[in-house]
Amino acid sequence: MEIISSVTDLRSRLRNEPAIAFVPTMGNLHQGHLDLVRIARQHGKCVVVSIFVNPLQFGANEDFGKYPRTLQDDCSKLESLADVVFAPPESELYPQPQQVAVIPPLENDLCGAFRPGHFRGVATVVLKLFNIVQPQLAVFGKKDYQQLYVVRQMAAQLNLPIEVVGGETARAPDGLALSSRNQYLSAGERTEAVFLYQTLAGVRQALLDGAADYAGLERRATQALGARGWLVDYVAVRNQAGLAQPREGEGELVILAAARLGQTRLIDNLEVCI
Amino acid sequence: MEIISSVTDLRSRLRNEPAIAFVPTMGNLHQGHLDLVRIARQHGKCVVVSIFVNPLQFGANEDFGKYPRTLQDDCSKLESLADVVFAPPESELYPQPQQVAVIPPLENDLCGAFRPGHFRGVATVVLKLFNIVQPQLAVFGKKDYQQLYVVRQMAAQLNLPIEVVGGETARAPDGLALSSRNQYLSAGERTEAVFLYQTLAGVRQALLDGAADYAGLERRATQALGARGWLVDYVAVRNQAGLAQPREGEGELVILAAARLGQTRLIDNLEVCI
Repeated sequence: MEIISSVTDLRSRLRNEPAIAFVPTMGNLHQGHLDLVRIARQHGKCVVVSIFVNPLQFGANEDFGKYPRTLQDDCSKLESLADVVFAPPESELYPQPQQVAVIPPLENDLCGAFRPGHFRGVATVVLKLFNIVQPQLAVFGKKDYQQLYVVRQMAAQLNLPIEVVGGETARAPDGLALSSRNQYLSAGERTEAVFLYQTLAGVRQALLDGAADYAGLERRATQALGARGWLVDYVAVRNQAGLAQPREGEGELVILAAARLGQTRLIDNLEVCI
Repeated sequence: MEIISSVTDLRSRLRNEPAIAFVPTMGNLHQGHLDLVRIARQHGKCVVVSIFVNPLQFGANEDFGKYPRTLQDDCSKLESLADVVFAPPESELYPQPQQVAVIPPLENDLCGAFRPGHFRGVATVVLKLFNIVQPQLAVFGKKDYQQLYVVRQMAAQLNLPIEVVGGETARAPDGLALSSRNQYLSAGERTEAVFLYQTLAGVRQALLDGAADYAGLERRATQALGARGWLVDYVAVRNQAGLAQPREGEGELVILAAARLGQTRLIDNLEVCI
């Protein structure tokens, strides 16, 4: 496995690779990331993982500064799974202030409503990385469901010759979705954190049992979380195809939520087919 | 020369081309376009010209409907110059409403101030075409100087592996810059139209003679055009590198102007090195 930090070196390493599968990450890799890399391996002859904490997708009051950076550990975990790790310094991706941006769909909906500019930052850095790596296929986790949707739409609407594949969310034994931000949690918060997953699972069960009052389900889930001390950004039942509010009879749904526990903002989602 | 209208067919035609040079156009080709195609021929083994009147870059009150469409003539002119003409219908580039857009720099400056959304539409369609054609090099005319700047910046800041080359403006014998929109002009307007070029040439001469009061030069040029019945959007002296207002001592400048003669909006520019 090679670790490359410059765009020029990466381009020259990849020049003659006919089938590149790419997993963009912000590092601090856990089992969920490694699952995505294994999916990439199934599809590509050359597996590239990028590790870059992208300042463009963090708001001024967010956790860019304290986001965990663990490059050496990450590279050890990838040693037997990836062919190339691309870990550029900030100056390599943003040699000048980035004036060109990609506006994705739904940039002010769901998480976008609470993180202004976030998805614009995501779309922009992902497009830059796509143009640098030029993969045939890229893998993103379903944990960041809206991000996966944004990247898929970007690829389709900008005519990128790249297949975007979603990987299932990896979970702790109690159900909590794996996330680099889980390590911000105190021991007590970690115990409580699973309630986000349990709340979504409750909504899923209600939908499977025939409930169709989406607004009511969302409101009760929000109240249940609030009663236990969570600050809820949203709980939303949407369709999978467009992340829009489902019309009557639509069966391929996803329940998404974002909520704060103490200082930590957690997100999760569950797909459900009725 | 092949004429191709579908993205799938074009991708399959170009799959094994190692050196593609690309000239995106809106058709109605004149000598200026053909010069760009000749530049492309010098650089690429396979020369692709796209012909697409892009609705995204026209404002609601602009000339999208009456913009001249002359595909058959255009293809005749290209027969001995290009290898592939890509002439997609609108439904091929925009099968759904385009929700993903590229925000370029200076989108509200110069022509952008008078054509809201124009450069966003240009950047978005050019990026789509780049992703479809995947050229090594693309040629744009200096006549649309701000557009050339926007595309260059987009290529650099989105890390596109594409060299963007500018081609000189072709002019009629009297100096008028060739443009598809010149055919909107009445005989009288056509005679008057050259005054736009002459005005820019006057500013260029003043700069070469040592004038450095850019605002004064701009104001007098605007007044001279206005006195002859032109409705002036702007006359601006900028630096070539960033299209910013020049600092004292900067020598690589460009004088840009946009003005209306009757119903027709004309643009032109002249580079000058002091």
